[in-house]
Amino acid sequence: MASSVVPVISIDRNGAKPVHRQIYDSYREAIMQGNLRPGQKIPSTRLFAVELGVSRYPVIEAYAQLVAEGYFESRVGAATIVSQDFPDRFTTAAPALVKESLNSPSSRVSARRTALVGQLRASQWTRGLGAFGVGQVAYDQFPLQVWSRLVARRTRKMNVRSFHYGEQMGSIMLRQTVANYLRTARSVHCEPEQIMIVSGSQQAIAITARVLLDPESSIWIEEPGYRFGADVFTLAGCNLVPVPVDKEGINVSEGIRRDRMARAALVTPSHQFPLGFTMSAARRLQLLTWAQDHGAWILEDDYDSEYRYESLPIPSLQGMDAHGRVIYIGTFSKVLFPSLRLGYLVIPKDLIEFFLKTRHAMDLAPPTFYQDVVSDFIAEGHFERHIRRMRLLYRERRSLLVDSISEEFGEAVEIDGSEAGMHLVVSFKTSIDDRSVAERAGQQNLWVWPLTASYLKTPEKTGFILGFGSTASSDIPVAVRTLKKLVKEAPSRPIAI
Amino acid sequence: MASSVVPVISIDRNGAKPVHRQIYDSYREAIMQGNLRPGQKIPSTRLFAVELGVSRYPVIEAYAQLVAEGYFESRVGAATIVSQDFPDRFTTAAPALVKESLNSPSSRVSARRTALVGQLRASQWTRGLGAFGVGQVAYDQFPLQVWSRLVARRTRKMNVRSFHYGEQMGSIMLRQTVANYLRTARSVHCEPEQIMIVSGSQQAIAITARVLLDPESSIWIEEPGYRFGADVFTLAGCNLVPVPVDKEGINVSEGIRRDRMARAALVTPSHQFPLGFTMSAARRLQLLTWAQDHGAWILEDDYDSEYRYESLPIPSLQGMDAHGRVIYIGTFSKVLFPSLRLGYLVIPKDLIEFFLKTRHAMDLAPPTFYQDVVSDFIAEGHFERHIRRMRLLYRERRSLLVDSISEEFGEAVEIDGSEAGMHLVVSFKTSIDDRSVAERAGQQNLWVWPLTASYLKTPEKTGFILGFGSTASSDIPVAVRTLKKLVKEAPSRPIAI
Repeated sequence: MASSVVPVISIDRNGAKPVHRQIYDSYREAIMQGNLRPGQKIPSTRLFAVELGVSRYPVIEAYAQLVAEGYFESRVGAATIVSQDFPDRFTTAAPALVKESLNSPSSRVSARRTALVGQLRASQWTRGLGAFGVGQVAYDQFPLQVWSRLVARRTRKMNVRSFHYGEQMGSIMLRQTVANYLRTARSVHCEPEQIMIVSGSQQAIAITARVLLDPESSIWIEEPGYRFGADVFTLAGCNLVPVPVDKEGINVSEGIRRDRMARAALVTPSHQFPLGFTMSAARRLQLLTWAQDHGAWILEDDYDSEYRYESLPIPSLQGMDAHGRVIYIGTFSKVLFPSLRLGYLVIPKDLIEFFLKTRHAMDLAPPTFYQDVVSDFIAEGHFERHIRRMRLLYRERRSLLVDSISEEFGEAVEIDGSEAGMHLVVSFKTSIDDRSVAERAGQQNLWVWPLTASYLKTPEKTGFILGFGSTASSDIPVAVRTLKKLVKEAPSRPIAI
Repeated sequence: MASSVVPVISIDRNGAKPVHRQIYDSYREAIMQGNLRPGQKIPSTRLFAVELGVSRYPVIEAYAQLVAEGYFESRVGAATIVSQDFPDRFTTAAPALVKESLNSPSSRVSARRTALVGQLRASQWTRGLGAFGVGQVAYDQFPLQVWSRLVARRTRKMNVRSFHYGEQMGSIMLRQTVANYLRTARSVHCEPEQIMIVSGSQQAIAITARVLLDPESSIWIEEPGYRFGADVFTLAGCNLVPVPVDKEGINVSEGIRRDRMARAALVTPSHQFPLGFTMSAARRLQLLTWAQDHGAWILEDDYDSEYRYESLPIPSLQGMDAHGRVIYIGTFSKVLFPSLRLGYLVIPKDLIEFFLKTRHAMDLAPPTFYQDVVSDFIAEGHFERHIRRMRLLYRERRSLLVDSISEEFGEAVEIDGSEAGMHLVVSFKTSIDDRSVAERAGQQNLWVWPLTASYLKTPEKTGFILGFGSTASSDIPVAVRTLKKLVKEAPSRPIAI
């Protein structure tokens, strides 16, 4: 926290007040206002004099007085600091902030659309790091040595161009690598020019929403579904149409019945979030036909299709689309790690310009450095190797989790979606208050998501989404027993809320 | 580009078709559809058999046939690849893409607001790397060795937590460092909890726009001003009110005359972009009073206040604000480098929740890695040292540029804004067609920005914004002579457009 940044002090050499007095006053005011804090390092008299373009004598005089009066603390052989004995109440409460706290927030926000923010639900169970965390990968299994080597190599190679703004669509090298991967592994029809590198699926959805939907536009949202994705459309002022999901994926007929003229549908065909079902071929065709007939758009969120345990990955919906109605969304969060913040969009060719300009107005361009590292990581085969290793590991964790749940909960629950991905859903035949259980579980470092939080309207099922990506096999049985205990302690409740 | 990713191929062991035939057909189709491309590596028969869970014999049989028919190329001692002789036209034109190209783009985009994208102007002069590039820093002077060391150290220290999603507001360490720096060096009133780390000033403006403005809301935009910032509000459907700038900064009285009830103002008080003026104390008070009286918001974009040559940095507008009406925006693009994509917002305390939730719906959280590196870079004093070194360097480049311009253009031009920052403005007493000069300059690797492109309405001046951050001193005189030549060749034109 120490810093020898020169404070903002302006000196008027021709002023009536002597220079040493101006310096003294400025420091005193900066300390009283809290701009300089107790313990903070003060620049040396020499540096200060050089930076202000004044002689060193008045600086020495001012500093001496500040020390004498207890504002500064001078220590032999060390930098001068703002006195640590200074009472905090004088130095942290800036007047502006005191006044603000008197107002209630709502009295100041004047945009109508901030009211939409209030509709977003809190989600304390999404942030913790521990057993059952959803979207958490086996962090301790990441090939950190390989990664470090690639990072070091790329850092050494940094040059003038790598410091400058990168390509707005993302680095061409990574886009080629991604296009190649998607064509082969996901049957996505694409050229590198259609790939846009973004900061993750959330940004991908946010950009797509801005290009293709207006406020008041309707969009089909899977029910239950991925709530962070839905939040984008809530904030955009769109009309969210919940469409129920069954074992074949989103119920397209029901969607058409509820809102035939919807502008778009946000779907997870490979591995429905959260229930884990794969959209059937018939439903895929029905969805594509609806989109084509009504000029609607399909946002295909293919967030973790790399991990399937019972069968091979199934081709993307985008690859079946002959009319460019699908926006394909992928992420590196699940196969590498989330703090990387890298994902990608595959954009129909005629929409590239709209996406590009919209993205430019949101954040100009993605950061370049990690794009190059990821590109190397894939090109050198580490990506594929890592996916294969993780598939084996997650399969084992998945089986253990299924066994533990069956053992502890038996006939009281159903397990869905364990054929793929890094989470499964356990739902209770007699409904429970999954939110309060999830809240209490968080206090014991179990980060289950309550299933009811994935519904926009009345939940049909209660239960939990359990991530097993970051939960060590040895921890699974204990974690399931703890969960059982918490469920037993919870009061049951009717399904309707 | 080579990859041994296993293609999406599904095998029906109980199907009527023999397994080797299913494999053959799948590969053939993937090649014909362009999902596998000439030269692309094919997984070994062993790996393929393991991944599909089939015996190796049918795989060998299918591969042999594909080689025999010329789809695959088998090379002794190397991986099998898709035949390189395969005519490209069979493998790159997926049917979906052919069909699309028949439609005109506008026939497919159905959102009203994509029409707003068309209002954004092209800007080919912003992307090049070369003399006079605006916003370009002295990339070759960046302390890369120190940086590499910090990067390597942070990479070694990566652990489970660093792979997980980071804090939504940004890492607390960096936010403390930034708060400390802003209080001292910019007189910003802030606590770490008010700092939000974003991907740069563009994202800062975009988040603020979404929280505080509605479509149709009016916002004052400096005329001339920062057009990428203005683009955010154009895309948001806001009503942009150009307010003229003079030597004291934005003309607040004129703003009030044009739109007293505007919801916000986007300003650059420390160093007006592009003209370079510093907003006077009187104007600052007038602006703050207007905001307080009308419940309006001030977006203070403090993009390069670190570099002043004639005087010390002047305090931020935010520090003068007693009513929490200012959103302060800063960036590391100008003092570190742009491809980092790191900047920050200082948010009035009662608005933090709105900003946080809005940001979450845009991209969840910032990437963590470089936040830690920057935090180390500042804490260890490299940041301050780098700024001091660059200030000397830019001062020298600035003086040389001013001298060269005076020598070549003499009385024909005026130079503004050379007291600070990394660019200055040269405007012509007799108006010129600055856009066409800028376009032709780009062909000679001179990346001047035409001044007229910074105006929303009728430009008052014509000329250029010349960046000198990345232009080596020795290149300046030649570059100015080239620019003079281009100006001489250009037809003059009346100011009105």
